[in-house]
Amino acid sequence: MSFSISATGKAVPGRLVSDYSEVQGSRLNIPLPLPSVLKNSFELVDGPPSSAVGNLEEIAEFFPKLFGQPSVTLKAVGASGEAAEERSLNIGVVLSGGQAAGGHNVISGLFDYLQARTRGSRLYGFRGGPAGILKCNYVGGFDMIRSGRDKIETPEQLKQAEETVTKLDLDGLVIIGGDDSNTNACLLAENFRAKNMKTKVIGCPKTIDGDLKCKEVPTTFGFDTACKIYSELIGNVMTDCRSTGKYYHFIRLMGRAASHITMECALQTHPNLAIIGEEAQQLIAELNEILLHEVIDASGVWKKKLQSHSREVFDLLPYAIRKQLLLERDPHGNVQLAKIETEKMLIEMVGTELEKRKQEGLFNGQFTGQSHFFGYEGRCGLPTIFDANYCYALGHAAGVLLHYGKTGLISSVGNLGAPAEEWTVGGTPLTSLMVVERRHGKFKPVIKKAMVELDGALFNKFVSLRDDWVLSNRYVNPGPIQFSGPTAEALTHTLQMELGIDA
Amino acid sequence: MSFSISATGKAVPGRLVSDYSEVQGSRLNIPLPLPSVLKNSFELVDGPPSSAVGNLEEIAEFFPKLFGQPSVTLKAVGASGEAAEERSLNIGVVLSGGQAAGGHNVISGLFDYLQARTRGSRLYGFRGGPAGILKCNYVGGFDMIRSGRDKIETPEQLKQAEETVTKLDLDGLVIIGGDDSNTNACLLAENFRAKNMKTKVIGCPKTIDGDLKCKEVPTTFGFDTACKIYSELIGNVMTDCRSTGKYYHFIRLMGRAASHITMECALQTHPNLAIIGEEAQQLIAELNEILLHEVIDASGVWKKKLQSHSREVFDLLPYAIRKQLLLERDPHGNVQLAKIETEKMLIEMVGTELEKRKQEGLFNGQFTGQSHFFGYEGRCGLPTIFDANYCYALGHAAGVLLHYGKTGLISSVGNLGAPAEEWTVGGTPLTSLMVVERRHGKFKPVIKKAMVELDGALFNKFVSLRDDWVLSNRYVNPGPIQFSGPTAEALTHTLQMELGIDA
Repeated sequence: MSFSISATGKAVPGRLVSDYSEVQGSRLNIPLPLPSVLKNSFELVDGPPSSAVGNLEEIAEFFPKLFGQPSVTLKAVGASGEAAEERSLNIGVVLSGGQAAGGHNVISGLFDYLQARTRGSRLYGFRGGPAGILKCNYVGGFDMIRSGRDKIETPEQLKQAEETVTKLDLDGLVIIGGDDSNTNACLLAENFRAKNMKTKVIGCPKTIDGDLKCKEVPTTFGFDTACKIYSELIGNVMTDCRSTGKYYHFIRLMGRAASHITMECALQTHPNLAIIGEEAQQLIAELNEILLHEVIDASGVWKKKLQSHSREVFDLLPYAIRKQLLLERDPHGNVQLAKIETEKMLIEMVGTELEKRKQEGLFNGQFTGQSHFFGYEGRCGLPTIFDANYCYALGHAAGVLLHYGKTGLISSVGNLGAPAEEWTVGGTPLTSLMVVERRHGKFKPVIKKAMVELDGALFNKFVSLRDDWVLSNRYVNPGPIQFSGPTAEALTHTLQMELGIDA
Repeated sequence: MSFSISATGKAVPGRLVSDYSEVQGSRLNIPLPLPSVLKNSFELVDGPPSSAVGNLEEIAEFFPKLFGQPSVTLKAVGASGEAAEERSLNIGVVLSGGQAAGGHNVISGLFDYLQARTRGSRLYGFRGGPAGILKCNYVGGFDMIRSGRDKIETPEQLKQAEETVTKLDLDGLVIIGGDDSNTNACLLAENFRAKNMKTKVIGCPKTIDGDLKCKEVPTTFGFDTACKIYSELIGNVMTDCRSTGKYYHFIRLMGRAASHITMECALQTHPNLAIIGEEAQQLIAELNEILLHEVIDASGVWKKKLQSHSREVFDLLPYAIRKQLLLERDPHGNVQLAKIETEKMLIEMVGTELEKRKQEGLFNGQFTGQSHFFGYEGRCGLPTIFDANYCYALGHAAGVLLHYGKTGLISSVGNLGAPAEEWTVGGTPLTSLMVVERRHGKFKPVIKKAMVELDGALFNKFVSLRDDWVLSNRYVNPGPIQFSGPTAEALTHTLQMELGIDA
């Protein structure tokens, strides 16, 4: 491979240099810091045998070849230490699932590691996600490989994957993805090992949702960039609010079950109201239970059965939604969640309620809602300095783990509160992140989604602040992501909390 | 007024310091450059008598007291030169019309000028736009005064304004707004002068639309920031496109008749297709004319009657829209413009057309559209370095013009291609920007809106590039606005063209 690599990315063949913006160009020319341990001789040190998040026995049965293997950590060895065997490797890399800023840097990191430590290696980029593995659709070297959402699960798909990795004589496969993609990586690793194939599989933690994390993998890449972009936009809308004074803005953020993005953006911007899905879910579960036994009346007896968090959430909700939660149920008696999930629905409901109050003489203001959905514009921003550095290190970690013949691990980069030079590098067994869940009627091993913890430090901080936000307009405008200056390397509130350094 | 001022803004009373984000805080602490001419002794030099854009006689009749007054420019005088008389002034300031980044800095500039050169002055901020003048609703000193869209036109409104400026003993009033607001400023100036009142009126050019400009006022503030925010978001969506490969994104940008924002964002990001309203308008005007006389048939005779620009636009449009332009007319025979203006409508039409082709066996791909509207999130971003500096200078200019007793002028800051220290400062007669137009059945003097010029250099550049963009995906991701580093002070393509320095 002849083209030169820069640390934050590189000129993709077929892309004109003039297609890079000035900011992008300036980012391309800045070398990225690398954890010191990667700069010199190191060895891999095993931790104790690993376990799983839950359902230990079942996970062990699902992964007989992988279960229990230890985490590994890179440790510097003196100049006298033994360097890893220099050998050439064939490695495939694939992006799986939703977009997230920094994926390019993972590949750059992997590439640079292979260049530096395993001369003569080949790196294949599978195009369009896992489907690229199934169809053996790849680019030699390095290109924009795109992502895709296919899975490699069925016996037929596994066979296709085996054919591809055999055809390309792959020593390793790096799967860059979220919880489902990494579960998939683990299944592949188990399958390859069970069949005595040489191909090892390493995962990398990617998702803007931030719902794949554990002690050794404190965050996923893309979360930092996405939250900062959404917070910039929310902050701008807030400043507009202050000046215009005639609209109520309802903003929905991209994401699935976990509300880490909403929580982070709320802490960055201080909206009047932030709806944390996990709270609503708990509230709804409690309401479903209470409504089986209690009568909803003015006495409020039923309400005292709610836990304090849930009672607070309930009281924060607009009247129209509270009413719907209590009165409108589906045929099974459950709250009709889908009906209250969108920003436009909320605007309509609030508007209806205020119109009613107006006619009753209880409200004489104006209500005009503006709806926003911030999604695609936050998944593929230029990565923040944190995401750029983190991804580059993750890519190196994947290279190291494959170089040392590891499989079924996820790249883990730690000590993230320190400068990048002091970050730790290693791998964590994917099985250690797993539990068994029922999916489509079958029990399956899955990486347990990290949800917002309603008894966690971050949520408590949010709770301690939000009452003041409701009426006081404590809006904060975080401004655009900066690549230099004092604010360029700020960590998210979420990551600071994970690292135990939240102020 | 006891609180200290920083150049990019200041801590607003009642707002907690903790409500400022880190980026905002760092911007608050950076002193802004000031045109050198403002730093020392200067005098005001008159230009030749001014005219109007059109309808000279009518404009002269509408503004008997103001028409023809010269532009003024500040010119440095030696240490021996006579400094302007030091006197205290009562000045009101109002934000009128849509939001735009940097308004705060205009007020800071005005405030700092008054502090430095007219000791003992008072600055009143009228709340909620021109309605604040009508209702004498103001804050002494300096606060978040909000904007509003009321006009001051009717005899009763003029009387209310007279009462307010008399009550507050105002020497001057600064109206920060777009074309309509500045037209209004001129009417007020004329009215005050006609009644021998002492209150002078100065306008400031604010609008993200960029449609208020002339040789002496090469741009409005807020345009730079808005275009850069929208371009960041468009660029991110483009990167997402490259990686996801499954959506077609349709983006609508905020704005009214003029398409400067769309043109600028197109040049910054290179979308596959950019619809410039002015082209469509010309095309539609031509089509309306042609359809009166020609038969639309396969011979294409009718098409040859289109001018070359219009023919190109027509060919660029999706088939479904071309068909609608030719076939679906309102009862007066005109194209039904409202039907083709929204991003969602385009998605629906393209989807319908492709479904039809699919059934005819002419198309076997997938089409899923995603719609976006980028609007409110671009009007109130932290101002770019350009907007911050430009606004600060505009505010100073307003202070100078009022200090020297000028009225009916708009702050003009020129030589914008040079460093801020070399910018020129002065005022331009509002009447010189005017024509007479029919509005609501009456002939009225208005500031002529600057539209995208279809024979201008910028449009020609766009035309020379866009064919390549259609199929080649020459996407550019400009990245977030930077406040330091090599890209922080880049001018828009639009302004570079106005200044004759476009590469």
